[in-house]
Amino acid sequence: MSFQSKIKTIEWVNNVSRMVDQTLIPYEYKMVDIKSADEMFDAIRTMIVRGAPAIGIAGAHGMALAAMEVASKSADKSEFIEKLQKYAQYLKSSRPTAVNLMWAVDRQLELAQKSQGTPEQIVRILIENGIRMENEDIEINKKIGDYGAQLVKKGATILTHCNAGALATVGYGTALGVVRSAFANDSSIKVFADETRPRQQGARITTFELKMDGIPVTLITDGMCGYFMNKGMIDMVVVGADRIAANGDTANKIGTYTVAIAAKYHNVPFYIAAPLSTIDTNIQSGSEIPIEERDKEEVTHINGKRICAEGVDVINPGFDVTPNELITGIITEKGVLYPPYSESIKKAFEC
Amino acid sequence: MSFQSKIKTIEWVNNVSRMVDQTLIPYEYKMVDIKSADEMFDAIRTMIVRGAPAIGIAGAHGMALAAMEVASKSADKSEFIEKLQKYAQYLKSSRPTAVNLMWAVDRQLELAQKSQGTPEQIVRILIENGIRMENEDIEINKKIGDYGAQLVKKGATILTHCNAGALATVGYGTALGVVRSAFANDSSIKVFADETRPRQQGARITTFELKMDGIPVTLITDGMCGYFMNKGMIDMVVVGADRIAANGDTANKIGTYTVAIAAKYHNVPFYIAAPLSTIDTNIQSGSEIPIEERDKEEVTHINGKRICAEGVDVINPGFDVTPNELITGIITEKGVLYPPYSESIKKAFEC
Repeated sequence: MSFQSKIKTIEWVNNVSRMVDQTLIPYEYKMVDIKSADEMFDAIRTMIVRGAPAIGIAGAHGMALAAMEVASKSADKSEFIEKLQKYAQYLKSSRPTAVNLMWAVDRQLELAQKSQGTPEQIVRILIENGIRMENEDIEINKKIGDYGAQLVKKGATILTHCNAGALATVGYGTALGVVRSAFANDSSIKVFADETRPRQQGARITTFELKMDGIPVTLITDGMCGYFMNKGMIDMVVVGADRIAANGDTANKIGTYTVAIAAKYHNVPFYIAAPLSTIDTNIQSGSEIPIEERDKEEVTHINGKRICAEGVDVINPGFDVTPNELITGIITEKGVLYPPYSESIKKAFEC
Repeated sequence: MSFQSKIKTIEWVNNVSRMVDQTLIPYEYKMVDIKSADEMFDAIRTMIVRGAPAIGIAGAHGMALAAMEVASKSADKSEFIEKLQKYAQYLKSSRPTAVNLMWAVDRQLELAQKSQGTPEQIVRILIENGIRMENEDIEINKKIGDYGAQLVKKGATILTHCNAGALATVGYGTALGVVRSAFANDSSIKVFADETRPRQQGARITTFELKMDGIPVTLITDGMCGYFMNKGMIDMVVVGADRIAANGDTANKIGTYTVAIAAKYHNVPFYIAAPLSTIDTNIQSGSEIPIEERDKEEVTHINGKRICAEGVDVINPGFDVTPNELITGIITEKGVLYPPYSESIKKAFEC
């Protein structure tokens, strides 16, 4: 049975990329129209759109917007392609860790490069491919959800970190896709949402989207996971991913690794839910994944107000890497991958 | 070499208990005068004063204030003692987890009960004993600091959770007493301070008091500890305690347990720093320690502003229990206690 979510995070409509402005959540649920590649760069950078798969689609839309802009300004097709390449570089630099962005932008660029059409025809092709990728994303998430739901015991409480939900994708979600598919079969399942400091995506976005879809959610602070695991109140952990190495090491929102260690200590199964597009088979292990370092104010200020002494030092890595030994399984659209991941990942790409 | 801290958290002055109002930190460093036992109950409950040893002294002062109030209202000494007993119960109910409060209040009550003097003379005795306990607390902390400093390697980075500092005691601190003593010998040591959601005592209070005393401090969010341990950037963890069972299991601020698990996973030494008055030899293990459940708004709101969807469920335990197997040593005024704690704790009380 499939679950109907109310949320569509990003959508190509009338030559613009229309997206939920996630900086306003949980106070407002408002759409914003992104009309140029420059606006898209800012939207990704400032996290109006966030979540690895959603950023991928934003990148694809960004390339369509870039193509629209440069088509009229290019003397010939080679200049058009050259300008498009520069935009691809630019868009990919907006956030370094999530590989879906690179994957989607490169997919669009390749389509343009291979096309025999005119710039105007290529514009059309990139728009249509962007829309195709939106639909693909939802279909993939539903598959991830359905595979993952088979791992969820009746009445289970699922802990998640950050937001790998409908709002991190085009719709439905990866980790929360598993929750949605499980909830469609068993309305007694529950979610515990980590606040996920510094940006509080768990508190702000995960609680918001689960409330919107009527799924029970309990908010906890990031340090509490050990306490609730010890009490036997958490049956499994499911989180998303920003980049997965060929050996299964997984970069995800900062704090994920600490949760994974606590899960291991309590023998609580720890799953990653992500599309194959999040797996970067070009890198062998997590140590090669670039970790974005973000603004210190994310740590020192909340809602514009300072929460600590003035002038303290801060280090603010946006992500951490959970080593494969802490991961029970990786839930993909091709099924659940198990250790040894070097082999199971390889197989998933072959079939 | 002893370190001179600028901070005196709580002090009996002119028949009032004068204390730093910790709800104003890090924005203001302001003293407030507590003039009655009722005001003291509220000051402890609302965390104007917090930190297990500081709450102990607040309880002792509270009993002196109670004695002042009831001395004039009692027909005879037995009525005076009876009323004082009620106040003792009342003050002890302000916060259930920290055992120092019970210990200090009971110590005052016992003094009153054993005294042969008049109510007026007992008032004097309780005031003087409160002042004696203030001085004792600082002396004990310096001993803890000096014993703990011997465990700190040159140039070490010490992670701490919550605030077990000068502002959690009368002065100097327990976990931060170790930091102060180590810093007096080696100015190249550094502190990493966990934010410590929900109440942010690490961000608000620990960074403030270390900055005030010129000790280098880096603020991190609670989920980041695993990341920095994995990078080899944390050499040891030192935290305080709210109650230690006879077997060494230790209740401390929520989130401590998760840090302890991460420390174990990375082989980072994890120490508790606390006076013997924090050890409750009446209870055999951590499972018997009552865990205070606090207001949901501490999780859902920061600085008065909601940070999540409306109507989400919340569970807000104020403390968690770190089992003795995760604790490398307990640093007390009688030296560092090591496993098996049932034996080393017993010995510490004998000598």
